[in-house]
Amino acid sequence: MTLLDELVRLLGAPNVLTGADAESYLTDWRGRYTGAALAVVRPGSTQEVAAVMQWSNQHNVPVVPQGGNTGLCGGATPDHSGRALVLSLGRLNRIRSIDIDNDTMVVEAGCILQTVQQAARDADRLFPLSLAAEGSCTIGGNLATNAGGTQVLRYGNARDLVLGLEVVTADGQVWQGLRGLRKDNTGYDLRDLFIGSEGTLGVITAATLKLYPLPVAQCTALVGINSVQDAVALLSVARKGFGPALTGFELIAGNCLKAVNDCFPQQRLPFEGSSAQLPWYALLELSDAESADHARERFETIIGEVIESGLVIDAVIAENIAQSKALWHLRESIPLAEKMQGKSIKHDVSVPVSLMAEFIKTTNQAVQDQFPGLGHVIFGHLGDGNLHYNITRGSQLSEDALLALQDQVYELVHNSVYRLGGSISAEHGVGQLKRDVLPQYKDPVEMALMHRIKAVFDPKGLMNPGKVLVQGTHP
Amino acid sequence: MTLLDELVRLLGAPNVLTGADAESYLTDWRGRYTGAALAVVRPGSTQEVAAVMQWSNQHNVPVVPQGGNTGLCGGATPDHSGRALVLSLGRLNRIRSIDIDNDTMVVEAGCILQTVQQAARDADRLFPLSLAAEGSCTIGGNLATNAGGTQVLRYGNARDLVLGLEVVTADGQVWQGLRGLRKDNTGYDLRDLFIGSEGTLGVITAATLKLYPLPVAQCTALVGINSVQDAVALLSVARKGFGPALTGFELIAGNCLKAVNDCFPQQRLPFEGSSAQLPWYALLELSDAESADHARERFETIIGEVIESGLVIDAVIAENIAQSKALWHLRESIPLAEKMQGKSIKHDVSVPVSLMAEFIKTTNQAVQDQFPGLGHVIFGHLGDGNLHYNITRGSQLSEDALLALQDQVYELVHNSVYRLGGSISAEHGVGQLKRDVLPQYKDPVEMALMHRIKAVFDPKGLMNPGKVLVQGTHP
Repeated sequence: MTLLDELVRLLGAPNVLTGADAESYLTDWRGRYTGAALAVVRPGSTQEVAAVMQWSNQHNVPVVPQGGNTGLCGGATPDHSGRALVLSLGRLNRIRSIDIDNDTMVVEAGCILQTVQQAARDADRLFPLSLAAEGSCTIGGNLATNAGGTQVLRYGNARDLVLGLEVVTADGQVWQGLRGLRKDNTGYDLRDLFIGSEGTLGVITAATLKLYPLPVAQCTALVGINSVQDAVALLSVARKGFGPALTGFELIAGNCLKAVNDCFPQQRLPFEGSSAQLPWYALLELSDAESADHARERFETIIGEVIESGLVIDAVIAENIAQSKALWHLRESIPLAEKMQGKSIKHDVSVPVSLMAEFIKTTNQAVQDQFPGLGHVIFGHLGDGNLHYNITRGSQLSEDALLALQDQVYELVHNSVYRLGGSISAEHGVGQLKRDVLPQYKDPVEMALMHRIKAVFDPKGLMNPGKVLVQGTHP
Repeated sequence: MTLLDELVRLLGAPNVLTGADAESYLTDWRGRYTGAALAVVRPGSTQEVAAVMQWSNQHNVPVVPQGGNTGLCGGATPDHSGRALVLSLGRLNRIRSIDIDNDTMVVEAGCILQTVQQAARDADRLFPLSLAAEGSCTIGGNLATNAGGTQVLRYGNARDLVLGLEVVTADGQVWQGLRGLRKDNTGYDLRDLFIGSEGTLGVITAATLKLYPLPVAQCTALVGINSVQDAVALLSVARKGFGPALTGFELIAGNCLKAVNDCFPQQRLPFEGSSAQLPWYALLELSDAESADHARERFETIIGEVIESGLVIDAVIAENIAQSKALWHLRESIPLAEKMQGKSIKHDVSVPVSLMAEFIKTTNQAVQDQFPGLGHVIFGHLGDGNLHYNITRGSQLSEDALLALQDQVYELVHNSVYRLGGSISAEHGVGQLKRDVLPQYKDPVEMALMHRIKAVFDPKGLMNPGKVLVQGTHP
């Protein structure tokens, strides 16, 4: 008990949780992983995080950093041994500063993403990272997993939105790297090494984020198309015609929109007749620096051209913000509708945009051949080559029968991704979920370098062990 | 001689240069550094690069990778020992592929930047990296130093333009990381670790680059302003008003334009009277997805507003491409005019944009106090917080007397940068030039991590030794 006493002395009793108080930290939010922990600690400052890491280093106690606990790959859930400490960053939740002229803000890791977005907005700026969990995920977790979301086409992934970091190392030192510089070529890029490393190399405690001007207007259009290849061609036209004003390009399979309409009849589809029966749809978003009228005019011009050329079959352009939101809401309701229709086997994959049609065609065919009768729910961020390719039980299988096929389906889809030069985790990370299969799909030289970096940053193997890498598999 | 014989066997005699044939590779283009080498080798493929690295690893021969030899910090010049091999990437100069639908191209390290730009243009795409040396620098060197240039405001530094890399490691293995994916969250970001490491961690042999749509029109405006603080305020207005169409924002001190006009009288300033005597000017560039007329209209609207508010004193908006080019040419002629007026002490520094006015004011004052009579040439990429802050001999000092002050001036300016949270190398890298002073200006935890990474990637210390880090200063 002396171990915990020492933590209580460092952090105060209310910030060292055990028993029932710790429970909610030990299961991931989808309920897929449950672990055990020596305790959950809630340090309130970078210095306290450093003290915890020194303590862990001294006593050889593994540490599992945790933000909002909204990850999708079990990256923030401890193993069953009960040896690890869960390090919750939730109390490091200050917006430290906003520098309007520099278009930057310094935030602590435990800030909720929505709070960060709002603080930027209050300063007449945009922090563009946006994703479904934004009401409860933390910016620290977003950076640890290099989160993606809906604005990547224009603004990039989480890593592209960061200028500087403050990090506590495995042995409890603090790297003061909160630079607010857009150009700094003085040595190795440690920032990007910590971003996306899922807490296995160090603990991100704060970050300097890039801000952008708020767009004057946003406008959305939903278009119906005949094929994925046509959607790819449309993306090319849209990138040329709209330039960087194009901030969203989502691909949606026809059956996804139908499912939304079935589950939520109050959400009406904006198409009727044959236009409501098309195999594919795309949702386009413009962010305009000029005016809502200008955005709509641009849509009308370019979409008029592609309807004339036959690339687009039908289209609806939002006439106001409410209509834009309603179109986005259709897209955002797909996962909910999918859930209401039963469990599914989900994939978060990417392939080169040019191979998207081939990926969908050949993978659908292989699923059909190997598991006749299964269905699919396909949607994603086409502009980023990122697809949520989900397999459903179709009309005949039970949920249990579907889930019994899970590993085989994973393997089929991941092999298909790999064959086309894609990634088995586009935006969710590796965590525990994909750790064991990762070496099958990565270059062996790359895997070896990753293990060597891990050994340098975390020589005792105490930083979020068992995540990303299978420890001990490389000397 | 057996050592060289083995290289000749691997690469062929014409690709192992010694004596006079090697000379041009042993001095940097500014003539600041000269070294010696066992030989200069010119492998023709990734496999040959790997063979050279295996050879070097086996025989403990240091290797200095070299691209176009246009670096500004001596990063590609060997030391005087004559022990090292210079590894020229010039023969790896193929554009391997262009994937138009994916907006990517795969190029070998030895491709000249201008060739890469042109290949993109031929495919109706933009590769936006652009800098003064683009006619002779190579993309491999650009990535090794994370080059900046004039389009960073919109498109980022070199690292932001890369999706994948192929790298030969210090022991001659090949990392096949040429992924063309905009989203891939499967482990540590090795790509960004190699980019900017100046050949000290491995040899970049090829890269997958991001392409963008070609803008339909570009338009430039030159505006006169009263102060740096007003320029910062104008930047904020321009970012809001033009959005991502704003692709350039250069700050120019009044005496720089005057020097250009004195040295090149055929380049007429577009202002007369008091507007030609202002202390500061800014060059703005718009890249428009719509039309040249639209770009000019946007300029007229926004610049009209800032003239009315008094933020901008006078402005000229280019009426056609020739005028746009002429305005850019004024900016590009500053270094030439500077050179014609004698040697100067140059700095490539960055500070947060919000502190730019304070940096210039306090640094000018400190120079004035410590070295009365010296002059300055100040220009740079204000949108990136990047300034070329150069000190000239003024009217009284000789060139030699100025250069005798060089180390003291460096120290004064770098201390000033450091005090404001800036970087002593914004876009040129560290090389030999800034290696020894770097530890004074970097967080010690960061320096220690850099040394540990170096030891992992290059355990024998053979990769471009003596660049970036002083080897042996950390265990």
